[in-house]
Amino acid sequence: MIARSHLLAVARGDAEPDLVVAGARVFSAFTREWLEGDVAVSGGRIAGIGRYDGGERIDGAGGFLVPGLIDAHVHVESSKLLPAEFARVVVARGTTAVVCDPHEIANVLGAAGVEWLLEASEGLPLRVYAMAPSCVPASALESPRGPLGPDDMAAILRHERALGVAEVMDFPSVIAGDPDVLAKVALHPHVDGHAPGVTGSALDAYAAAGIRSDHESTTWEEALEKRRRGLWVLLREASNARNLSALLELVRRHGPEYCAFCTDDREPDMLVREGHIDAMCRQAVAEGIAPEDALVMATLHPARCHGLDELGAIAPGFHADMALLEDLESFRAAVVIAGGVVAARDGRALPFAAPPVPGWVRDSVHAAPLGGDAFDLGPAAERVRVIEIVPGQLITIAAQDRPAVRDGRVVADPSRDLAKLAVIERHHATGRVGVGLVRGFGLRSGAFASTVAHDAHNLVVAGADDASMAACARRLVELGGGIAVADGGELRGELALPVAGLLSEEPAEAVVARLDALVAMLEEQGVLVDAPFMTLSFLALSVIPDLKLTDRGLIDVVNARVVGLAV
Amino acid sequence: MIARSHLLAVARGDAEPDLVVAGARVFSAFTREWLEGDVAVSGGRIAGIGRYDGGERIDGAGGFLVPGLIDAHVHVESSKLLPAEFARVVVARGTTAVVCDPHEIANVLGAAGVEWLLEASEGLPLRVYAMAPSCVPASALESPRGPLGPDDMAAILRHERALGVAEVMDFPSVIAGDPDVLAKVALHPHVDGHAPGVTGSALDAYAAAGIRSDHESTTWEEALEKRRRGLWVLLREASNARNLSALLELVRRHGPEYCAFCTDDREPDMLVREGHIDAMCRQAVAEGIAPEDALVMATLHPARCHGLDELGAIAPGFHADMALLEDLESFRAAVVIAGGVVAARDGRALPFAAPPVPGWVRDSVHAAPLGGDAFDLGPAAERVRVIEIVPGQLITIAAQDRPAVRDGRVVADPSRDLAKLAVIERHHATGRVGVGLVRGFGLRSGAFASTVAHDAHNLVVAGADDASMAACARRLVELGGGIAVADGGELRGELALPVAGLLSEEPAEAVVARLDALVAMLEEQGVLVDAPFMTLSFLALSVIPDLKLTDRGLIDVVNARVVGLAV
Repeated sequence: MIARSHLLAVARGDAEPDLVVAGARVFSAFTREWLEGDVAVSGGRIAGIGRYDGGERIDGAGGFLVPGLIDAHVHVESSKLLPAEFARVVVARGTTAVVCDPHEIANVLGAAGVEWLLEASEGLPLRVYAMAPSCVPASALESPRGPLGPDDMAAILRHERALGVAEVMDFPSVIAGDPDVLAKVALHPHVDGHAPGVTGSALDAYAAAGIRSDHESTTWEEALEKRRRGLWVLLREASNARNLSALLELVRRHGPEYCAFCTDDREPDMLVREGHIDAMCRQAVAEGIAPEDALVMATLHPARCHGLDELGAIAPGFHADMALLEDLESFRAAVVIAGGVVAARDGRALPFAAPPVPGWVRDSVHAAPLGGDAFDLGPAAERVRVIEIVPGQLITIAAQDRPAVRDGRVVADPSRDLAKLAVIERHHATGRVGVGLVRGFGLRSGAFASTVAHDAHNLVVAGADDASMAACARRLVELGGGIAVADGGELRGELALPVAGLLSEEPAEAVVARLDALVAMLEEQGVLVDAPFMTLSFLALSVIPDLKLTDRGLIDVVNARVVGLAV
Repeated sequence: MIARSHLLAVARGDAEPDLVVAGARVFSAFTREWLEGDVAVSGGRIAGIGRYDGGERIDGAGGFLVPGLIDAHVHVESSKLLPAEFARVVVARGTTAVVCDPHEIANVLGAAGVEWLLEASEGLPLRVYAMAPSCVPASALESPRGPLGPDDMAAILRHERALGVAEVMDFPSVIAGDPDVLAKVALHPHVDGHAPGVTGSALDAYAAAGIRSDHESTTWEEALEKRRRGLWVLLREASNARNLSALLELVRRHGPEYCAFCTDDREPDMLVREGHIDAMCRQAVAEGIAPEDALVMATLHPARCHGLDELGAIAPGFHADMALLEDLESFRAAVVIAGGVVAARDGRALPFAAPPVPGWVRDSVHAAPLGGDAFDLGPAAERVRVIEIVPGQLITIAAQDRPAVRDGRVVADPSRDLAKLAVIERHHATGRVGVGLVRGFGLRSGAFASTVAHDAHNLVVAGADDASMAACARRLVELGGGIAVADGGELRGELALPVAGLLSEEPAEAVVARLDALVAMLEEQGVLVDAPFMTLSFLALSVIPDLKLTDRGLIDVVNARVVGLAV
C-alpha cells in the first residue's frame, strides 16, 4: 500500500521517479499509436507518461519505447541453457517475460524439477511463468522418470508464477473425452492447447473441452479455423518448426487480434544468432506486417492470452518492463528495462546474480551397464522396419527394407545409409534398451548420442558401429548427461549437459561453439541433415508419426503400439 | 466431467444435441466474420458449428445469430424493477448478461441487500454478475443506512457471481492516495473506475492505482486518453447521460478494441420504449459503425473486460447465450437463447419462475414523524443560496437570490420558481431534515417526493407549499417507499416502491404507465423539466457539483462542506 501510494505521488508529480525514459516515441498498445512524452517509473511500475523531473534519466530521443517482449509459449530447456543464462540471452533482445511449459525437466525430474526451474528463475531480469505440464509421459509407450499426475500438477499450480495447464498434447484423448485427460484439463480455467492439423468437428470437441490456445498451426487457414473457435493463435517460429511466414496471412486478412508470438523450441544457436521474439517482429515487418501489429502480438496479446493483466503495455500501474528500440525494422534494443531497472544496453545484458544450482539436479543419469549385446538387432530377417527421416520435420516415414546380415544377425549398413538406433532407459537403470534402424542421417562411420531425447529424455544413440555407439553411451553416463560423437570406437567430442541431462552450465556462446564443433565432426563422418542432434532427439518421441523408437522398442505411432524389427 | 464428456460427444457428432440453430449466419466474435453452419447446443453450452441431426430445431434462415448481448456496467435498481422483471424486459431485447454495481441497494440495505439482489437474480434467463460497491456512502456528507466497509465488500466478493470492486467514484481520494480508498481497491485485482473529466497526471495516478475501466467519458478525446492508459472504455448511453454518439468517434478512429457498451442508469420508460444494449447497437450502426464492430462491443468485449472467459462468443465450450437477429439495422431479436434454452421469441420473454421477495427488504423506510416546523427555512435573510437545476445534467449551479419572507421566515416563492427542497433521513428515524431552495422545476403549486434519492436514498421532497410536501412525505412513509405527487395539501398520485424504497413489484409496463401519469400531473402543476423525478433524485447526491442538499443540509460540493441557507 505504501509503495502504491508512492507510485501515485510520482504519477501526480508530487514525488521523484526512480527512472525516466525521456523523449522516446512511446508505444500505446491499447490503441497501436505512438505517444509523445517521458515515461516515469517508480517501485518497478509505470507511474505515467508526461513530463517529470529527477530520477535516473535515459535518453530515448530517436528511439521507440515499447513494452518488454513476451514469449507466449516456450520450452526453456530446448535452449540447453540454465534459466539465468537463457534470461541473459533473451533479455538482451528485449524479452522480459516468457510463459514456459517445463515438460522436459518434468520428464526427467518430475514435479521437483519444475519447482527447481521456478526457483532457478527467481530474481532474474526475466519473468518466467510456468504452465503445469499435462502430458508426462507423452504416451504410455515411453519411459520418463515417472508420470506427472493430477496431484503433481495441482502442486505446481499453487506456485505464484504458475498460470494454468500446459499444452494438452494428447489431443486424440481430449477429443475422445478420455476422463483422465479431461480431469487434467479441469484443474485450472486457463489451459493451453496443442492440436496439429485438428479441424472440423474434432477441433470443436477439442475447444469444447475448455482449451483456449494452440501453437501448432502450419497454414493460415488452419489458424483461422482455430481463432474462429476462440483459441488464441500462437504463431510459432521454432528451430524445427518455422511457421511464422505461413501464418502471417491470417494477420493480413483478419488483423492481429487473438494472435501472439511464441518460439516453442529454440536451439541455442538460433537464440544467439537470430534472436528471440525480436526476430519474429523483424521477420513479420519484413513480410509487410505493420510494426504496431507485430508489436501487439509480441507484447500485449501474449499477456492477455495468459491473463497477465499488468504486463504487455506501457500504462500507469503496469510493470515497468520496456525495450527502447533503435528502429522498427531491426527491432534492436538499445536499452532494456525489466521491473523498472536497466537490464540490458546495446544488446548485452547487465550482470545479475544467478541462483546456485543444487547438486541433486545434476544426478539424473542412471543407466545400467551396457551388455555386449545391448545393440543386437536380432536374427536375420527377410524384411525389416526402418525409420526414415524427413528432413526438417518431426514426422518420419515407416519404411521397410532388406537388412544387412552378419553372423546371422541384422546389422547396420552405412553403405545404404542404414544406421543403428538405440534408446537406453536412463532414469531407473532398468537396462531396457530399444533398438532399430534409421535412414537419412548419411552417417558413414562412428556414432553420436544424446540424453536430450523427447519427451522422456532417455539416452538415444545412432551409429554405424556398436563400439562407437557404446563409447558415446558410456561417456554420457560418466558425464551425467550430454551430447557425444565417437568414431572407430573412440570418443571424438562432447557437450556436457549435467543438469537433468538437458542443460549446460556454460555460457550460451560456449554451448553454441561446442555444438558447432560436434556438428562439424558429424559432417566429417558423412552426416548431411541439418541439426542432426535435434533430429536425433525427436526420433524418440512416441507421439509424432509414423515410426519412432523408445526404450520399449519400435513404436508404430499411428496405431500406438510396439512393433518388431522384422516385418 | 460427465456433462463435459457429453458435450464433446455432441461436438464430434456422436451424440444428439439438445438444440440446434440451423441455417443462420453465425457471428464469429474473434474474427468479426459471419460463418455458415448450424450451431449445436448441449447442456447449456455451445458444442460446435457444423451440421447436426436431432435436438430441438430453430430455423435461423435469413437471420444473424450473435452472442447474447452483455451490459458492461449497470445499476439494475435504476430500472425501479425487481431483478426478475428487469430480466424479462432486457432478455426480450437480446441481453443475456449484465455486470451490475448494486450500490443503490447497498446504501439502503447494506451488504445483506446486495446478497438479496444476487439471490433475487438466481435462476433467471439473465446472468447477473455483481461488483462489490466501493463508495457507500458516496461522501461523509450524506447518510445511507450505514457505511459498506472493506469487510462487507470482502464478504460480497466471496459470492460466485461477484467479479471485482465496483466503480471507485471517489476519484479525488484515489488520486490523492487515500489509504482507506486504496485498501478497497486492493481487495480484488479487477476494479471498475469512474473518473469524469479526469485527464493528464491525475488520470495517470487514477490508473496507477490499478483501476481498469471507466464509463464517464463525455468526449472521444477523453475516452482516447483513458484507453491509451489501459482503461477499458465503457461507452455509456443512460437516461440522463447520453454519451454514445460523442464517443463513437473513438471507434471510428481507433477501432473497437478495449471498448464496450454499458447503460449505467436507465429509467424503466427508456428500457421499455428504446430498449437496452440492442438500442446501442442500433444507434451505433445508424451512425456509421460497422455492425460487426458494434457487436463485439456488445458481446465479446464486455465479457473480456470483466474476465468472463466463457461468455461473449459463439464458440465451442462457451455458454450457449445467443440472439437470433432479424437484421443488422433494427437488431430486433426473433429468438433469444439463454443457457441453452429459448428465453424469448418475437420480442417477448417466455415465462419463468421469479424468486419470492422476502419481507425484510420491504421494511426500509424508518422516518421520524414530521414536526410542524420540519420544512422551516429559518429567519429572514438578505440573500440565500439557491440550487439551480441545469436541464438534462446532474450538475447544478450554486446560485444566490433575495428570498421571499413571510412572518419573518424565509419561504418558497412559486412566482419566481423558487421551490422548497427537503431531504428527510429515512433509515434510522433520526428526525434529521435538510432544507433549502431550488430553482428550475417550474413548480407553481403542490409538491412531489421520492425515496429514490441518490446515493443515500433518503426521502427527498420539493414543494410550493408545506402542506403538500408533508402529504407526500407522510404517504411515502406509509407506503414504505415510492414516488408521490400532491397539491393543495392532498395526495394526487403515487407509485409504490416497497422494495428498499427503490423498486416496484409491478410489471415494467405498469410502472411506466404510473410514472407517465405522475409526470402528467406535475406538468399540470407547472413543472417543465424532462424527467422531473430523476432530476429530483440527483439533487441529493453530494458528490456532483456545485450545490446539493442532503439530510445534513446544503452541500457545497466543490469544498465538500455543509453551508447555511443564508449567505
